[in-house]
Amino acid sequence: MLAATLQMQPALGDITRNLQRIEAAAAAAAAMGATFLVAPEMAVTGYNIGQDLRSLAQPREGTIADGLAAIAHKQGIAVIAGFPEREGNAIYNAAALALPDGNRVFYRKCHLFGAAETAAFTRAADVSPLVTIGGLSCGMLICYDIEFPEWVRTLVLRGAELIITPSALPRSAFNNRVSKSVVPARALENHVFIAYAGLCGREGDAEYQGGSVITGPDGETLARAGDGEALLIAEIDPARYLGSGLDPYLADRRPDLYGALSISTA
Amino acid sequence: MLAATLQMQPALGDITRNLQRIEAAAAAAAAMGATFLVAPEMAVTGYNIGQDLRSLAQPREGTIADGLAAIAHKQGIAVIAGFPEREGNAIYNAAALALPDGNRVFYRKCHLFGAAETAAFTRAADVSPLVTIGGLSCGMLICYDIEFPEWVRTLVLRGAELIITPSALPRSAFNNRVSKSVVPARALENHVFIAYAGLCGREGDAEYQGGSVITGPDGETLARAGDGEALLIAEIDPARYLGSGLDPYLADRRPDLYGALSISTA
Repeated sequence: MLAATLQMQPALGDITRNLQRIEAAAAAAAAMGATFLVAPEMAVTGYNIGQDLRSLAQPREGTIADGLAAIAHKQGIAVIAGFPEREGNAIYNAAALALPDGNRVFYRKCHLFGAAETAAFTRAADVSPLVTIGGLSCGMLICYDIEFPEWVRTLVLRGAELIITPSALPRSAFNNRVSKSVVPARALENHVFIAYAGLCGREGDAEYQGGSVITGPDGETLARAGDGEALLIAEIDPARYLGSGLDPYLADRRPDLYGALSISTA
Repeated sequence: MLAATLQMQPALGDITRNLQRIEAAAAAAAAMGATFLVAPEMAVTGYNIGQDLRSLAQPREGTIADGLAAIAHKQGIAVIAGFPEREGNAIYNAAALALPDGNRVFYRKCHLFGAAETAAFTRAADVSPLVTIGGLSCGMLICYDIEFPEWVRTLVLRGAELIITPSALPRSAFNNRVSKSVVPARALENHVFIAYAGLCGREGDAEYQGGSVITGPDGETLARAGDGEALLIAEIDPARYLGSGLDPYLADRRPDLYGALSISTA
């Protein structure tokens, strides 16, 4: 199948405009034959929305997820995008995955980054649901989540073959290496496809890395964006890797030796 | 301090010759002011020694470890090298770390690669001891070990700040990415220095990647070898990274979510 990632600079706080832009990319990707399109973390509202977070956040049955579902249905392509999700008094940094058949699933970021994000969002504690897209078992992570090898592995041990990751890396030499080294390493060490879509450009006092990339289960970069807006469309084909002698990492793990990883020291 | 890694093609089965070559590199590195030198996996005997493995293997008090200790003492530099270690009937794929003061510690590879290695060696089950080198708490891994993020993290959670890794990657596009993507990612995601020294060249029907690299705790490559024999000497300076805003990965881990990592499924 063809995977598509949208690297974008959202219009801050303008949900209608951002949904229109995601729909335009979804339509283009679908016209090319893509099976899914992933937009960045908080793509529907913009990330740096400050005090407007509470008023812009939406429940799972709200206008944001409804809008994404309408795009998926109309354009005939699975659509994934980040948005602020409200449940009661809690606000989560979330992603919605809308399928063309009307099904939708959600994931909430479990590894929050820095003091501002920790103050703004409730920290979640659930691994992503898995849905089948183009025959692959697909799960979600959000940005900082993927930098934790334990959390990626946990998703893979549950069966994920494709990991979709909306992100919003602040621009830095360090985060350039996150995109160019860590994300491919996650794909390689787990033998999964990763579709990683980043925010780009400037939002007030914040500037984002872009860094969108699609990687194969051998760690090969299948498509990579620069630092501006970009739509990547690349084939991801599991058959290409059959019998290619990928190291059997999952079989060769030593879970008997990994007990320290789940001991809380706090 | 200065770190040194020796990328080498050992003389197959010729312990005396290989110790001489390690000593020559140790002398050169020490003359430059290096604090330690790491040689590849099985550097003292060569890797592809086939049926000679049992006769070439040595106990911890044997001629190999004694030879490395003598080099460390004479040249005034810590020396780490891979060798086949015999204990009773068991043979381990091991590394010896010899300090100039006469102390020596050992590590045995816990993640064995492939059918041949699994048949030849006993699979170990102990994390590396930690020793202080140049003020940094230093642990060892061997080759395939470092490709498992769980095992690297386990060593870091015990306190490692510098990870020394003798390796012998078979030559392939995949293993080129192990050296260029996975090893820097391990450094970045754990904020540790890594000194990774690879076998190179051909040993009978096997050809090795080289891939030696020294990386900083931000994932930056401080020195990298090509595919031939090479001696890398690079400064590793923790003070350079103080206050540089590295993401607080260890503090931001969610051990409460990682229980699946230590569940055996076999």
